[in-house]
Amino acid sequence: MNDLLLRACRGEATARKPVWIMRQAGRYLPEYRAVRAGHTFLEMCKTPELAAAVTVQPVDILGVDAAIQFADILLPLEAMGAQLHFEEGRGPVFERPVREPADVAALRRPDVDRELGYVFAAIRQVKDALQGRVPLIGFGGTPWTLAAYLVEGGGSKHFSHLMGWSWSDPEGLRQLLDRIAEVSIDYLAGQIAAGAQAVQLFDSWGGLLSAPRWREISRPSLQRVLEALSDRAPLIYYVNGGAHLLEAMRDLPVQALSVDWRVPLPEVRQRVGPAICLQGNLDPTALLSSVEVIREQAERLVRETAGPHIVNLGHGILPTTPVENARAFVDAVHATTA
Amino acid sequence: MNDLLLRACRGEATARKPVWIMRQAGRYLPEYRAVRAGHTFLEMCKTPELAAAVTVQPVDILGVDAAIQFADILLPLEAMGAQLHFEEGRGPVFERPVREPADVAALRRPDVDRELGYVFAAIRQVKDALQGRVPLIGFGGTPWTLAAYLVEGGGSKHFSHLMGWSWSDPEGLRQLLDRIAEVSIDYLAGQIAAGAQAVQLFDSWGGLLSAPRWREISRPSLQRVLEALSDRAPLIYYVNGGAHLLEAMRDLPVQALSVDWRVPLPEVRQRVGPAICLQGNLDPTALLSSVEVIREQAERLVRETAGPHIVNLGHGILPTTPVENARAFVDAVHATTA
Repeated sequence: MNDLLLRACRGEATARKPVWIMRQAGRYLPEYRAVRAGHTFLEMCKTPELAAAVTVQPVDILGVDAAIQFADILLPLEAMGAQLHFEEGRGPVFERPVREPADVAALRRPDVDRELGYVFAAIRQVKDALQGRVPLIGFGGTPWTLAAYLVEGGGSKHFSHLMGWSWSDPEGLRQLLDRIAEVSIDYLAGQIAAGAQAVQLFDSWGGLLSAPRWREISRPSLQRVLEALSDRAPLIYYVNGGAHLLEAMRDLPVQALSVDWRVPLPEVRQRVGPAICLQGNLDPTALLSSVEVIREQAERLVRETAGPHIVNLGHGILPTTPVENARAFVDAVHATTA
Repeated sequence: MNDLLLRACRGEATARKPVWIMRQAGRYLPEYRAVRAGHTFLEMCKTPELAAAVTVQPVDILGVDAAIQFADILLPLEAMGAQLHFEEGRGPVFERPVREPADVAALRRPDVDRELGYVFAAIRQVKDALQGRVPLIGFGGTPWTLAAYLVEGGGSKHFSHLMGWSWSDPEGLRQLLDRIAEVSIDYLAGQIAAGAQAVQLFDSWGGLLSAPRWREISRPSLQRVLEALSDRAPLIYYVNGGAHLLEAMRDLPVQALSVDWRVPLPEVRQRVGPAICLQGNLDPTALLSSVEVIREQAERLVRETAGPHIVNLGHGILPTTPVENARAFVDAVHATTA
């Protein structure tokens, strides 16, 4: 079994660095689009055969060193009672945004086996299909990022409802984050029990708060999730736009810290210390260029990053990325020794 | 005359700190909406009487210590031959995005007096109306941020055309940036000649590049603009999402550095040195809360920031901000001594 990723998470030396690609089960792959063609996005998430099929595709097609469970980070919010749908070109929409204590009180703590069991079933199918070839990473969002969508009612430019709430009633917002945290723990523990060998938590909007406010508002619920899971599987925390939070995050109870492309990993290493595994961080738009540029950038990234390192992009792969460029990235990492 | 802002730019000590608000001539003001009601956004920009009227409004209504010329950063691109229009809910749209050397070659260097003279005329009217009460700040975008819109054809989530170009043909992109820089110099020099007493350059998308790539791709054209103007008026450089660029920006030839809310100003001060004037950086969503919270945050901001400091938000004021909250912010700054 290729356990490079798990060993990197444990801080062990490996002969070469593991590599996978955020959003590797995605629209840039013709094989993904073929499965997606007959189904809505939520159908894909909720049909274990489909979710499992697209989860395994990039392992076969690109030769990445890990699979990550195909799902949407917002599924546990739906299980808590929020009505979720996806609109073409607009993304996720919650018809009734959560904006005050009464809305928070109306959320329920679901039986995750009953309400999110389709994810666990998909994980079991993926494990069967992978037969131990590479580890499977479980998939979730942080309480802050889940709350961001739930409070705004979808994506947003300024997240003014969320951020406004954080100023006017931080305690009320923390209660929402705690409610999401307790469900996230059940949900992610369920993914691990079903076979996920690591878990990545996505904090896509983690960078909205300044460091002092991040510590005060976002961190407690995140910490609670991480602490509840930390003896079950290695944890990877991904933050987007978090260049100002590196020092604040360095003592999070995670095995790996995944960052976007804005801060070069040698500087990240300096700022977070030698022990933690780093993940990232090629700019995903570099994969829109040529095989030559990609090869050069992949080699640079592998060579310049000291300590435990899982090679990846700094953000999800773009749908317009040519498959051969994604493969060139993976191949170049495999061919480079640090 | 209230010249607090100009003195802060020069690094002089002032009895109290000057304050103004990014996008202070904007939709949160009923008086602005009244002027805007009968006109398109571009008509507002191109009719000196209207542009002048809304520029002066916040000085009268809020008592801010500076006016900033109402305009759109993209106007010089239109003068270069790019067809620009604004769509409700979508923002600026360039019908024919600039994506290759032939597109760059087709751009022209306009006679700014003829093609952008309406901005200069508005500035002269503002100066007449202000009668020296407060300084007037000229208004422009950086070559990188202007190019971002021109290359994408409008706003964008990932700016994949711009960023992809930066990987595949950085020299070609630099040529576009240089073309924009030369027109920006003419345009901003024209604003100063018409009466602007300082200039703020907005780099809304300045944070997209890592520091090494920012130095290589974005900085040369920015530096060119700044150097050409630096003996004519104080320059303020605003960057959004630039927490990872502070060290790279500290030696830019500007009098003031304006940053978003993500890094507290005491840390910005540490990272950019004691000499430069800082501008910012209250989170604009704080103005959605209560007068009590706003007062507390304004006092904290004034007191904790050492050295020359122009108080402002970290991003433009949101259209949903109550006017009394904006006024509470200005009043609290005026009432606080550092």
